[in-house]
Amino acid sequence: MNYEKFYADRVKPMKGSAIREMFKRMADPAIISLAGGNPASELFPGKELAEIARNILIENPVGALQYGTTDGLPAMRECAASRAKKVNAIKDSDQVLIMTGANQGIDLTAKALINKGDKIIVESPSFIGSLNAFRTYECELVGVKVEDDGMDMDELENALKNNDNVKMIYTIPTFQNPTGVTMSLEKRKKMIELANRYDVIILEDNPYGDLRFKGEDVATIKSLDTDGRVIYAGSFSKILSPGMRLGYLVGSPEILGKVEILKQVNDVHTPVLTQMMCVEFMKKYNIDEYIERNRELYGRKCAVMLESIEKYFLENRVKWTVPDGGIFMWCECPDIEDITPVVDKALEKKVAIVPGSNFAIDMKAPSNMFRLNYSSATPEKLEEGIRRLGEALSEVLQ
Amino acid sequence: MNYEKFYADRVKPMKGSAIREMFKRMADPAIISLAGGNPASELFPGKELAEIARNILIENPVGALQYGTTDGLPAMRECAASRAKKVNAIKDSDQVLIMTGANQGIDLTAKALINKGDKIIVESPSFIGSLNAFRTYECELVGVKVEDDGMDMDELENALKNNDNVKMIYTIPTFQNPTGVTMSLEKRKKMIELANRYDVIILEDNPYGDLRFKGEDVATIKSLDTDGRVIYAGSFSKILSPGMRLGYLVGSPEILGKVEILKQVNDVHTPVLTQMMCVEFMKKYNIDEYIERNRELYGRKCAVMLESIEKYFLENRVKWTVPDGGIFMWCECPDIEDITPVVDKALEKKVAIVPGSNFAIDMKAPSNMFRLNYSSATPEKLEEGIRRLGEALSEVLQ
Repeated sequence: MNYEKFYADRVKPMKGSAIREMFKRMADPAIISLAGGNPASELFPGKELAEIARNILIENPVGALQYGTTDGLPAMRECAASRAKKVNAIKDSDQVLIMTGANQGIDLTAKALINKGDKIIVESPSFIGSLNAFRTYECELVGVKVEDDGMDMDELENALKNNDNVKMIYTIPTFQNPTGVTMSLEKRKKMIELANRYDVIILEDNPYGDLRFKGEDVATIKSLDTDGRVIYAGSFSKILSPGMRLGYLVGSPEILGKVEILKQVNDVHTPVLTQMMCVEFMKKYNIDEYIERNRELYGRKCAVMLESIEKYFLENRVKWTVPDGGIFMWCECPDIEDITPVVDKALEKKVAIVPGSNFAIDMKAPSNMFRLNYSSATPEKLEEGIRRLGEALSEVLQ
Repeated sequence: MNYEKFYADRVKPMKGSAIREMFKRMADPAIISLAGGNPASELFPGKELAEIARNILIENPVGALQYGTTDGLPAMRECAASRAKKVNAIKDSDQVLIMTGANQGIDLTAKALINKGDKIIVESPSFIGSLNAFRTYECELVGVKVEDDGMDMDELENALKNNDNVKMIYTIPTFQNPTGVTMSLEKRKKMIELANRYDVIILEDNPYGDLRFKGEDVATIKSLDTDGRVIYAGSFSKILSPGMRLGYLVGSPEILGKVEILKQVNDVHTPVLTQMMCVEFMKKYNIDEYIERNRELYGRKCAVMLESIEKYFLENRVKWTVPDGGIFMWCECPDIEDITPVVDKALEKKVAIVPGSNFAIDMKAPSNMFRLNYSSATPEKLEEGIRRLGEALSEVLQ
């Protein structure tokens, strides 16, 4: 049977995320992965959540196992609101929607806003999961260069000036995926000003904001918004557990009302037990103390990676970003055009990295960049991984 | 701020499910709900799942809390396959995808196949969650009348003959939502024959198939398919827990490969803990024994509802279906055009039912039908609910 004729136009050009495909191939335990976006698992509160899950299912089995409401449990919405409040990302008039991971919030926000041919301005490079979600609505992605202090605002202004049908700017302003870069306060203010002037929506994706281990917090873009044009996407994936798939949207009830309808026909509601577990965890324990332990761990791991890079990478042949938090850094090899031979050589040496093309607007163009993750592996494996990667780089670059 | 201009065309006409909106309003504990689609909660295995969840989180916290794979845990895919095998709905060449509820499978299958303007043939009436999911892809729904033995096959043939761009037939052949009707084997064979002749995909949605309390099982449409054109959607919502949001798709790896990519950008993967809990439940307990107890309960509840209807409804003024399983029956008041006054009167008397317009292709046309659910309320409440509804009917019809 020939299935080709049945496919919708939107999926014809789609390929799966190379990163998640890589996960599948990484059954080989000898491989050190610097590729994924997994948070550290050393500190997962397994025991605490074990007792919590048990108590919920004993005390309120019907609550945990029966259908829930599409917008999420009221207590879970309060937990999300309390996280958003910490970064001034919620106003009294805002709605909160619990999502099955923030990615669902990003996907369905695009579904609510984007017609075929509409444009979304995104950081270049940016998170493949969001870019691919946007691509399924047949929009045009307009990339704006990321500098050391975030999106280039002149380029953003030009993009807004020179493009019709821009509906939305999508940004990960803090510890950006994949660059690890944080947007300055000045640029955040400028972005709001431009969004107001050109009347576009901003989708602020902030999964890593809590993971700062250096420097001072910068105000969220949502906190600078007076019009109600910023939709804020938060997540419990990097501060509690990604496997639980708990994220949320905060923003105008008008737009979120549309997103809620789309969620209703998507997964009806986010699983109830995991919502209740998150609520109980935040009731019984101080999640900020737990996050603090993670921050400290990420700071240590990042330092190990940076020291290893200094030690094992060819001098002056690789440039890298130095993040103040989050889980990623970004490397560039200015002397070559295409990083693929390095990625392949590294995989031979059993270390996995993600080539930059995955995060590009034009995924077919060669990229001389790659992303490194330091949250997932142990410090020992981080050093060994960078050592092997250094070897791969030396063999290809020399 | 005026948000109207930002919305995508696909969401402009969308309204939330009246049924799920009703849930929100039903905080009043005096209301007897015959409206929802909740399975019985009396038998939920809360204690068993409590121990299972606890053990998983103690023994394998990283497995349960870290990111999983988009297609689902291998052991969970085996559990889904074993359910599909019981009804011959899986071939060796088929792929299995774990979904966050079967609704996600239906939504994303439509997303993979449907371009704007494509047509989907559906039972009329049909499940609002699926119809609304389809509507978000700007397709045209072509309704085919449901008879006591399922879709009218002459009408289906005409629909296929007279419509271009039919990509898919969507059917709930067994204990259909909302009618409770089951399609005969003869009609299932005819549907496959027609789908082969007109070269369209069939999406077979079978969430209630396990809940037969009368008569003999009828072969699934998937089991009659030799071309690989049937996608089978199964669910654990009605046989274990809807709050856990566990469903699955079985079918051609070509189409399911596209759906998997769309799931990757939607919720990345289904929460892991709930998948592991389902796997362990099926390992430790005989789920078919559990289903058997539910079947028996549903048979009893259905009988109570039918007896109460005979007792309390005005003679010869209401027609109803007599289901052999599942959770719904369907009523019609041939003497009136619009059921709304009955629904309103019933709500005054604190009993909730869903008007037929919700399940119609044209939701704005008046409907003289309504859906009744008998799985959720206790037998006592079922009788009392039907008594009050009988009063409402008498007051409006006389």
